[in-house]
Amino acid sequence: MKKVLGMGEIMVQFNPTEKGPLLYQRMFERHVAGSEANIIIQMQKLDVKTSFFTAVGSDPFGEIIINTLREEGVETNLVKIDEGNPTGIYFVQRSYPYPGKTTVFYYRENSAASKITCDDIKEEVFEDVDMLIISGITPALNESVRNCALKIVEMSKSRGIKVVFDTNIRIKLLKNKEKALECVQPFLEKADIVFTGMGDLNFLFKGEFEDKKNQLKELAKNTEIMVIKMGEKGAIALYDGHTYKQDSFKVPVVDELGAGDAFDGAFLASILKGYDVKTALKYGCAAGAITVSLKGDIEPLPKWNDLKLFLDIHSSGESKLLR
Amino acid sequence: MKKVLGMGEIMVQFNPTEKGPLLYQRMFERHVAGSEANIIIQMQKLDVKTSFFTAVGSDPFGEIIINTLREEGVETNLVKIDEGNPTGIYFVQRSYPYPGKTTVFYYRENSAASKITCDDIKEEVFEDVDMLIISGITPALNESVRNCALKIVEMSKSRGIKVVFDTNIRIKLLKNKEKALECVQPFLEKADIVFTGMGDLNFLFKGEFEDKKNQLKELAKNTEIMVIKMGEKGAIALYDGHTYKQDSFKVPVVDELGAGDAFDGAFLASILKGYDVKTALKYGCAAGAITVSLKGDIEPLPKWNDLKLFLDIHSSGESKLLR
Amino acid sequence: MKKVLGMGEIMVQFNPTEKGPLLYQRMFERHVAGSEANIIIQMQKLDVKTSFFTAVGSDPFGEIIINTLREEGVETNLVKIDEGNPTGIYFVQRSYPYPGKTTVFYYRENSAASKITCDDIKEEVFEDVDMLIISGITPALNESVRNCALKIVEMSKSRGIKVVFDTNIRIKLLKNKEKALECVQPFLEKADIVFTGMGDLNFLFKGEFEDKKNQLKELAKNTEIMVIKMGEKGAIALYDGHTYKQDSFKVPVVDELGAGDAFDGAFLASILKGYDVKTALKYGCAAGAITVSLKGDIEPLPKWNDLKLFLDIHSSGESKLLR
Amino acid sequence: MKKVLGMGEIMVQFNPTEKGPLLYQRMFERHVAGSEANIIIQMQKLDVKTSFFTAVGSDPFGEIIINTLREEGVETNLVKIDEGNPTGIYFVQRSYPYPGKTTVFYYRENSAASKITCDDIKEEVFEDVDMLIISGITPALNESVRNCALKIVEMSKSRGIKVVFDTNIRIKLLKNKEKALECVQPFLEKADIVFTGMGDLNFLFKGEFEDKKNQLKELAKNTEIMVIKMGEKGAIALYDGHTYKQDSFKVPVVDELGAGDAFDGAFLASILKGYDVKTALKYGCAAGAITVSLKGDIEPLPKWNDLKLFLDIHSSGESKLLR
Amino acid sequence: MKKVLGMGEIMVQFNPTEKGPLLYQRMFERHVAGSEANIIIQMQKLDVKTSFFTAVGSDPFGEIIINTLREEGVETNLVKIDEGNPTGIYFVQRSYPYPGKTTVFYYRENSAASKITCDDIKEEVFEDVDMLIISGITPALNESVRNCALKIVEMSKSRGIKVVFDTNIRIKLLKNKEKALECVQPFLEKADIVFTGMGDLNFLFKGEFEDKKNQLKELAKNTEIMVIKMGEKGAIALYDGHTYKQDSFKVPVVDELGAGDAFDGAFLASILKGYDVKTALKYGCAAGAITVSLKGDIEPLPKWNDLKLFLDIHSSGESKLLR
Amino acid sequence: MKKVLGMGEIMVQFNPTEKGPLLYQRMFERHVAGSEANIIIQMQKLDVKTSFFTAVGSDPFGEIIINTLREEGVETNLVKIDEGNPTGIYFVQRSYPYPGKTTVFYYRENSAASKITCDDIKEEVFEDVDMLIISGITPALNESVRNCALKIVEMSKSRGIKVVFDTNIRIKLLKNKEKALECVQPFLEKADIVFTGMGDLNFLFKGEFEDKKNQLKELAKNTEIMVIKMGEKGAIALYDGHTYKQDSFKVPVVDELGAGDAFDGAFLASILKGYDVKTALKYGCAAGAITVSLKGDIEPLPKWNDLKLFLDIHSSGESKLLR
Repeated sequence: MKKVLGMGEIMVQFNPTEKGPLLYQRMFERHVAGSEANIIIQMQKLDVKTSFFTAVGSDPFGEIIINTLREEGVETNLVKIDEGNPTGIYFVQRSYPYPGKTTVFYYRENSAASKITCDDIKEEVFEDVDMLIISGITPALNESVRNCALKIVEMSKSRGIKVVFDTNIRIKLLKNKEKALECVQPFLEKADIVFTGMGDLNFLFKGEFEDKKNQLKELAKNTEIMVIKMGEKGAIALYDGHTYKQDSFKVPVVDELGAGDAFDGAFLASILKGYDVKTALKYGCAAGAITVSLKGDIEPLPKWNDLKLFLDIHSSGESKLLR
Repeated sequence: MKKVLGMGEIMVQFNPTEKGPLLYQRMFERHVAGSEANIIIQMQKLDVKTSFFTAVGSDPFGEIIINTLREEGVETNLVKIDEGNPTGIYFVQRSYPYPGKTTVFYYRENSAASKITCDDIKEEVFEDVDMLIISGITPALNESVRNCALKIVEMSKSRGIKVVFDTNIRIKLLKNKEKALECVQPFLEKADIVFTGMGDLNFLFKGEFEDKKNQLKELAKNTEIMVIKMGEKGAIALYDGHTYKQDSFKVPVVDELGAGDAFDGAFLASILKGYDVKTALKYGCAAGAITVSLKGDIEPLPKWNDLKLFLDIHSSGESKLLR
Repeated sequence: MKKVLGMGEIMVQFNPTEKGPLLYQRMFERHVAGSEANIIIQMQKLDVKTSFFTAVGSDPFGEIIINTLREEGVETNLVKIDEGNPTGIYFVQRSYPYPGKTTVFYYRENSAASKITCDDIKEEVFEDVDMLIISGITPALNESVRNCALKIVEMSKSRGIKVVFDTNIRIKLLKNKEKALECVQPFLEKADIVFTGMGDLNFLFKGEFEDKKNQLKELAKNTEIMVIKMGEKGAIALYDGHTYKQDSFKVPVVDELGAGDAFDGAFLASILKGYDVKTALKYGCAAGAITVSLKGDIEPLPKWNDLKLFLDIHSSGESKLLR
Repeated sequence: MKKVLGMGEIMVQFNPTEKGPLLYQRMFERHVAGSEANIIIQMQKLDVKTSFFTAVGSDPFGEIIINTLREEGVETNLVKIDEGNPTGIYFVQRSYPYPGKTTVFYYRENSAASKITCDDIKEEVFEDVDMLIISGITPALNESVRNCALKIVEMSKSRGIKVVFDTNIRIKLLKNKEKALECVQPFLEKADIVFTGMGDLNFLFKGEFEDKKNQLKELAKNTEIMVIKMGEKGAIALYDGHTYKQDSFKVPVVDELGAGDAFDGAFLASILKGYDVKTALKYGCAAGAITVSLKGDIEPLPKWNDLKLFLDIHSSGESKLLR
Repeated sequence: MKKVLGMGEIMVQFNPTEKGPLLYQRMFERHVAGSEANIIIQMQKLDVKTSFFTAVGSDPFGEIIINTLREEGVETNLVKIDEGNPTGIYFVQRSYPYPGKTTVFYYRENSAASKITCDDIKEEVFEDVDMLIISGITPALNESVRNCALKIVEMSKSRGIKVVFDTNIRIKLLKNKEKALECVQPFLEKADIVFTGMGDLNFLFKGEFEDKKNQLKELAKNTEIMVIKMGEKGAIALYDGHTYKQDSFKVPVVDELGAGDAFDGAFLASILKGYDVKTALKYGCAAGAITVSLKGDIEPLPKWNDLKLFLDIHSSGESKLLR
Repeated sequence: MKKVLGMGEIMVQFNPTEKGPLLYQRMFERHVAGSEANIIIQMQKLDVKTSFFTAVGSDPFGEIIINTLREEGVETNLVKIDEGNPTGIYFVQRSYPYPGKTTVFYYRENSAASKITCDDIKEEVFEDVDMLIISGITPALNESVRNCALKIVEMSKSRGIKVVFDTNIRIKLLKNKEKALECVQPFLEKADIVFTGMGDLNFLFKGEFEDKKNQLKELAKNTEIMVIKMGEKGAIALYDGHTYKQDSFKVPVVDELGAGDAFDGAFLASILKGYDVKTALKYGCAAGAITVSLKGDIEPLPKWNDLKLFLDIHSSGESKLLR
């Protein structure tokens, strides 16, 4: 194995210290987040060599993003510093009006990452890479980024690099089903591994679960592994004609954000380590469970020791001595 | 609709940042609270024009109370600034010794609001008002305030203003059943709309639930709508010979304080907006559920959009896309 | 006296809890600030009736701005809620790399307030107004806002409303002396009262202090009172052929932001209260001194009692009993 | 009753303000903890006179420990200040990787308390004492401390002082079952009252629950009362040929640390107060329940009033008026 | 030396985390303070055995006061717990409107300590005591407390206990010079050691400094040592016909509260340790300097080692190695 | 230029949020610090390629140190992870008993870094390195580390790598002048560039400043550049027979820790960039001034832009427009 490359926007997140309406929040913690970056950092924590292709502003928030990637061990030589456009940021409203649900307020229009174009793609991007990770958020940003994303996927395919795609639909960017389908379709068609979730499936397709699954399979015709994340109901993987299923691990839910990304990262790292699909599903669900039980997108992401200890305690029950 | 007037004491609340015995608390958040003020602010958030009749000290805590009402859009021209007596304050001990239960320590004796007398009632108090809101806390403060409250109720009735009364018994102010009954009886008799809760019902009356309900009905003989809030069991409303029932919405309980007030405010705003009693019960229960799921009395109070989104997510389940 | 109207952009400010490079900041306090709004709130605290003309986004940050104005008693019926553009925000880096100096990072491009046009000016804007306050920041935002500002000034003049202008140059918006001069010139010409500071004077004009002052006087030909704020050196006012001077009050400097605005507000409120120019300078300098000695733009703004106590302690020295 | 003496190491605990990996924690609260000290403080809160035998460093952390004991009313004249060795400290990682589970990182090697020897035992240690409390942590520290602990137990027995022993096994100190058994055996043999927990029982013995219980009984041959704490399943006590059982009180679990110590302290204080074993079990379980529902080891420990109010609310249900 | 007894009210103090108007403060730290208690704790830190005579409410704030005294090693058996009246509390506004100056807002009317009467004085109060400390705050509370204070002073004198009195005038309690003089006069007459400050001297007497000093000497006719604290100008002591002077140690002033109390405590502990008046003045000024350089009343109080290190660094200058 | 290598212990620092005695501190911030690491990170910020040779424990604190170096861009492949020994940590007491002075409490005995031996030195350590940075702290740890440090210095010299040595004496490690001299002498003899400070000079040598300087010169006989840091008096450099002097830049002192390290790093980076000694002194003093004006060791370290802006504002004075 050489290296896994992520592509997408990484933003600085401002997360109030308290739950409830943003209107009354007075203290905010600064975090760094981005769906593809979360996946990449999860993989790096699981001993996979990684790099990231994106752009940030020439401002303190851009520095924060680069320092965070570097801190986690992700290579940053492909992160462009854009002198003319700012780093995207967003604010989070937690658990309001519905407990456990999060609303976001973006300042990402005209951000550095949304100004990436095909011209930014150099041959060095693909050097030593054998897996590319991209999600449905990236092509949803705007047409220029979508074209760039598509070109990177195509150039990856032609160089024998595996393409991973997570549908990851954002209704704040893609207003309706038609736009969403149009956006993700070319990526679904080319991806070697596809991740999706129940929310996305319900948004994109009609009918019973089986119908939806089949419609997705039809679109993702070249896909080797297809994974459907179902939240509290666990996850299933379709691979080599079989369907594998893993129940979720029940934990108290503190913050849903980033759980799907942790799942993706742990699943992929497991596959790259040589584990079978069933085992990869188990590690994916464990990583997701650990992530929902804590605040933050990056901070809860587990290492192999953490995953193993989690599964060990889970099976041995309360009465195990830990101190 | 013209304006809803609240009357009662508003206090500055000091709420420790941590749960547990007050003895070990070292950091306190400052809030503003008061049962009738909570109801009024809930109504103001639901687009009802409101005003408040009370007194505060000529001190920073009095300023805080006025600024808070003003911030929320409540009219403050009827708030008297008392040069000689301080603003009432109180401290909260949360979740100790019983999880989820709150103990309060008052410094409200001789507070400005407890020094209100009949002389403070001017004709301008009733200007443009068509609903008065009062609770059982106010007459429980002392005799002078009780007389003042009763006079306001009577003057309201004679001017065609609807009177709303929530029994809201505080055992720290009314030591036993007899005192409590004596205190609330004249208000129950005159109120057009009556709210009560299971705790109050159990404290005031004997027998099975039906017996208690009937005893209340007998006292509240002129009442048009009578609402009984039953916490986790939802709420019922008696109106026009029918009984309407609404189950509660299950959410994780963070802080019970203020939930009943949110219920009252949302129920009344629904009625004033023209919704039927059944719908008003649903919005009341939703407002209560949102409020118990968050800290603070005022901060969680929902607007119409929040209530609708809450009910929408509640019925559509986990798999809805929100980002 | 009827009412003072402010016009300009009000933004939500994110201020790190610690001094030093933004790169390492992890906790931010939310504040509200805006030069003209600071002046208006200072005047409201000094018992002047005020209103504000601006636009905010239809988002929680817009709500925060309206609630803050309302809390302070400023009328908000002229604040437009723009459904299509967000509320402007900014981040502050304090005391780095130079102690006491502040750097700002704006997310205000395409903000609601920067989208105001002449069409937003209705006759009601001028109702009951007899003083308009505007600063050099507003015309520097963009051409459309500049035109709108100029039109408001002209309409004010024609209605007999006094126009106050503070040059308040922002080099992040106006890159060089020529652009700055072009921007402020039409406002200087029309203003009845002009405020400026040493930094602005040095940026706009060449030569010794006297030369600069004269060049300003030439531009501000219709001005009745001209005030030059000189930071640690106090302030001077030119009025009716005389020059009045007030030394600054020495206090430890905690945060320079907003001190000039406090000065303007206290000077103007003093004039409106009927004090002479010399006394107005003294109150202006006292308000500025109080403001630099504390964090925040709005929070330190004094009331009359505070100003008087400040001056009293200043003259009586250390040995006065205060407790 | 005269006095209860505790012996063991007390440490300063650094507890991050957030749950999750220690790697990302940036803010830590300082607490004081130690299993035997927790028991002693619980008893002191329940009106038992107490004292403590230990050593601390001649450093601020040693002062903190002495001040904490003193604050709680525990006598500190037997706390030795060791000029040459530091106070032991430790760091806590909460809820990671498994929700609700805690990992500790000790800096206790060569700590003052681990340097205690038999020479530190003076006759005054036993003055006015009629009960000694010790746990399995103390002899596990090192051989010198183990000898000292054993000598204190023997000297206590010969002076007619009752000996209480809680097995309290720490796998970070005692690597395997054999070492653990060897360590606790001499104490089990001599103790008048023995506490153990399900985790310890599972670690020390093989077979079904009944077998394990019998193996323990065989070792603890001179024991009058034997108590097995079973977490969510409550607790049982073996006394005078009978087995008494108490169900646990269901509360939301916030922090498991210290719950067993609270149980021990409340059980023993009940016995000393003259309550029967059944009642002592009830108070022990109530104290444990209160403790798990809050952070911290010492802060949640209840007084008699708290225990009674807890049980009262528990039996009367939600609808009791408390304010 | 046997024991020093303090008498006076101890209150719980709520101190905002930020400087500025109380109106905008949202987070408060809880402290414990009281002038006489500060002196007593300073003496206890300097190895003097101490006790305190006061009353607190039967509430968590009363417990906090007792625990704080106990933590510091002060005996608490003379602290009465008053079932019927609450513990006094107060709020602090720091550095507003004048930098470095503090305003207080009391909730101490009808507090437990203000309800102390002569009946509370038992013979055990004087047991083993050879010095009594009292300040002008105590007789200023009300007549009953004044009588009680006077009786304690008289009973002390008749038992050969030295009486120390600090004039400590509070204008919030004693409105004018006449009331203040009347209040302190009987105590000045009887005291063996008298402390006063420049503010008090200016408030009580007319004329030049020498005149004021002489007027004080005339009143305090039986006094052995008279100390005048002059803030930044140091302090003087009149003893045995000589005047001793000590310059102040220049340090950055963070919080003036409690500095005079620290001075008193360190001066008295020095005298009790056998140091001469000149040395006692030096330690007093050092303790005062350390206290003004930090927040809080009790926390900065130095021990002998701290005082010696302070003086050592002060004389050796910057270039001393400390790490 | 290829790469600069640092060697020394890096520790996790716990720094209370408040100044004053550690006894009362309850909240601690976690930082990372180490004299040589500070120098290296300062150089990395000034665009010099760097690496670090040290050891950390196999624990979260070791991870924190590696992540911090990585975040700053320092190479970490030479950081050994020691399975058997913990990462060194320390606690800081700020501004007590003397304002601005810091006391430290170490838990570094038997730390991973103190267990480094000559066997840990591999040829790869010197790869691509042309400057080695070491300070007097490292040989002061123990004999084994001293031997290892000396061997690295010798191996560096024989490979043509420049050796930089800062005397950096710690009296907590080296009790007296003789031990200190013995410890630093072999390093002074071999160093190409030597840094020292006034405190060290006073501790090591007797006589007037000139005498001390000459004694140092005699020991450091092979040194090309010798720099003496004199705190508030600036710094001097001896180079090529000349003495260069730079005054310090006056700024408010917040935290002295790390200022000398910032000086060293900025001086060395300037030399490596080709600036002359005079200019290097200026940048060194500017970096030191910026660092003392802020809390933390690493966070204030400036980049070239920051240094230039600092010097620019310093020379242009107050009246420059910055916003």
